[in-house]
Amino acid sequence: MNLAISFADVQSAAQTIKGVANRTPVLTSRTVNELTGYQVYFKCENLQRMGAFKFRGAYNALLRLSQAEKARGVVTHSSGNHAQGIALAAKLLGISAVIVMPTDAPASKLAATRGYGAEIVLYDRLAQERAEISAQVARERGLTFVHPYDNPHVMAGQGTAALELLEDVPDLDVMVTPVGGGGLLSGCATAAKALIPSIRIFGVETAASNDWWQSFQRNERVKIPPPDTIADGMRTQQPGELTFPIVREKVAEILLVSETEVIEAMRFLLLRLKILAEPTGAVAPAAVFQKRVGPPGVKVGVIISGGNVDAPLLAQLLSGS
Amino acid sequence: MNLAISFADVQSAAQTIKGVANRTPVLTSRTVNELTGYQVYFKCENLQRMGAFKFRGAYNALLRLSQAEKARGVVTHSSGNHAQGIALAAKLLGISAVIVMPTDAPASKLAATRGYGAEIVLYDRLAQERAEISAQVARERGLTFVHPYDNPHVMAGQGTAALELLEDVPDLDVMVTPVGGGGLLSGCATAAKALIPSIRIFGVETAASNDWWQSFQRNERVKIPPPDTIADGMRTQQPGELTFPIVREKVAEILLVSETEVIEAMRFLLLRLKILAEPTGAVAPAAVFQKRVGPPGVKVGVIISGGNVDAPLLAQLLSGS
Repeated sequence: MNLAISFADVQSAAQTIKGVANRTPVLTSRTVNELTGYQVYFKCENLQRMGAFKFRGAYNALLRLSQAEKARGVVTHSSGNHAQGIALAAKLLGISAVIVMPTDAPASKLAATRGYGAEIVLYDRLAQERAEISAQVARERGLTFVHPYDNPHVMAGQGTAALELLEDVPDLDVMVTPVGGGGLLSGCATAAKALIPSIRIFGVETAASNDWWQSFQRNERVKIPPPDTIADGMRTQQPGELTFPIVREKVAEILLVSETEVIEAMRFLLLRLKILAEPTGAVAPAAVFQKRVGPPGVKVGVIISGGNVDAPLLAQLLSGS
Repeated sequence: MNLAISFADVQSAAQTIKGVANRTPVLTSRTVNELTGYQVYFKCENLQRMGAFKFRGAYNALLRLSQAEKARGVVTHSSGNHAQGIALAAKLLGISAVIVMPTDAPASKLAATRGYGAEIVLYDRLAQERAEISAQVARERGLTFVHPYDNPHVMAGQGTAALELLEDVPDLDVMVTPVGGGGLLSGCATAAKALIPSIRIFGVETAASNDWWQSFQRNERVKIPPPDTIADGMRTQQPGELTFPIVREKVAEILLVSETEVIEAMRFLLLRLKILAEPTGAVAPAAVFQKRVGPPGVKVGVIISGGNVDAPLLAQLLSGS
């Protein structure tokens, strides 16, 4: 079966975003290494422009539109970070953007998306299908739909995070990323497996949003009801059509973490490592902190996917101490 | 007048701490540059071991003790970060340490200091003189007193933060650091002025703890009553005897920021830059965010001195939104 992207696509995306996206730092922590027994390298996509890896794929996808498509504008749907990524990329490239967002998206993500100049269309996540709304807007207004993950340019763009990580730490044994729609995981797995065929790759999701885990068990794309999870980047209900085959082929295992483990990981990253991860951004670190990604001693690269969290939610999580 | 340290002392300290202290990253932010008009480089000492620059000076000072002094152990006083720095350095070097800490020190700093195996002696900051208590403990138990700032090895050690910053960004126009006792500022000013004689250096304190500002006005070491400021690293009441002459000679100006400006800076660093600064760590950034460190366009290096903040305080600061 033909996969949607190849390593060359990720390399090409890296050229596209160079100097526009941040080359995010890779941080280490003696404390984490002592506690886990691993050698852990955190790829800090919470320090990416607009606060999440999503800018990589969004910029790569928008830049590759035709002049006519750019002139007409784009539409997408997103719980938040892809929205901001598209909004910022569109602003930088002078493209108009419409974003279909759920009414319960974090206020900071809604505000930032508006702040970048995008038009927002709200929908009720529990009652309406966002794909239908986006398709309707695209049809009525002649806009190009940019899927948040099932788009080869988006997937290739997200893969540049792994490319950079492996340039900085070329001998990883394990790579761990969160998985929502699968854009980040499919892109990163494509890059990592090309560079290190023996690398073991884990995708992590919360137990409440276990569509990937179920899909791995059944070897088909299982659709789940709208999941109730603090990790708002994982509220997708089904693996992507383009992302699933890549993940199925290249990823060793889908791991599950509990809501409590995610919150503990967020608190640890914040209070001990001094970096702010959003809940979704703490999902992959949570699996590492729980020592679920291999035997002691292995070199683990883990992606902190984003850091966009509302102050009130953060205050609430911190008050729990 | 002879100054307590020279550039050679800072260079020597850099050799001492190499591979033991973290070489902390220098982060930049397009958002900050757009908002301030400066080109800002954040030296992230909140990502230093034990969460603050203090480890640099503490380790340098302890390593240079004689074998006999090491065998007897050390004592110091500190509101928190120097305590942790000494405690961790002592643990690494197999030295026993007693720390005199105020009863109102942040709980996380007390816990971490204990966690490194140090013995803690508590005192009432508003009623007792910590210097007297430390001196008494030193006398009675034959321990060597390691002053939190008025110690040449401590000062030289803290200066390595500026040395690294200027290795990474060699053409700074301005350097901004917080000033409590003056260890960080004197060390960093010694390094920076040696490397770039034209650099303008600012020390920043809160208006509530303006002992340095007053001392600059009167050209002598003014002592103030115990200050009420959220920046617990600035609760010193008087510039150091060794640090003041260096700061007086090398630093352009002492700047004041309000408590509100510090809290706003903390929130901005956390929610936009995704890094956690403690109140004292946000004091120098606050002056930068308020555009008080020079005309637009200048290249500014600013030290985020630490990131050790209690979860409840942080929750409270975030709830204010």
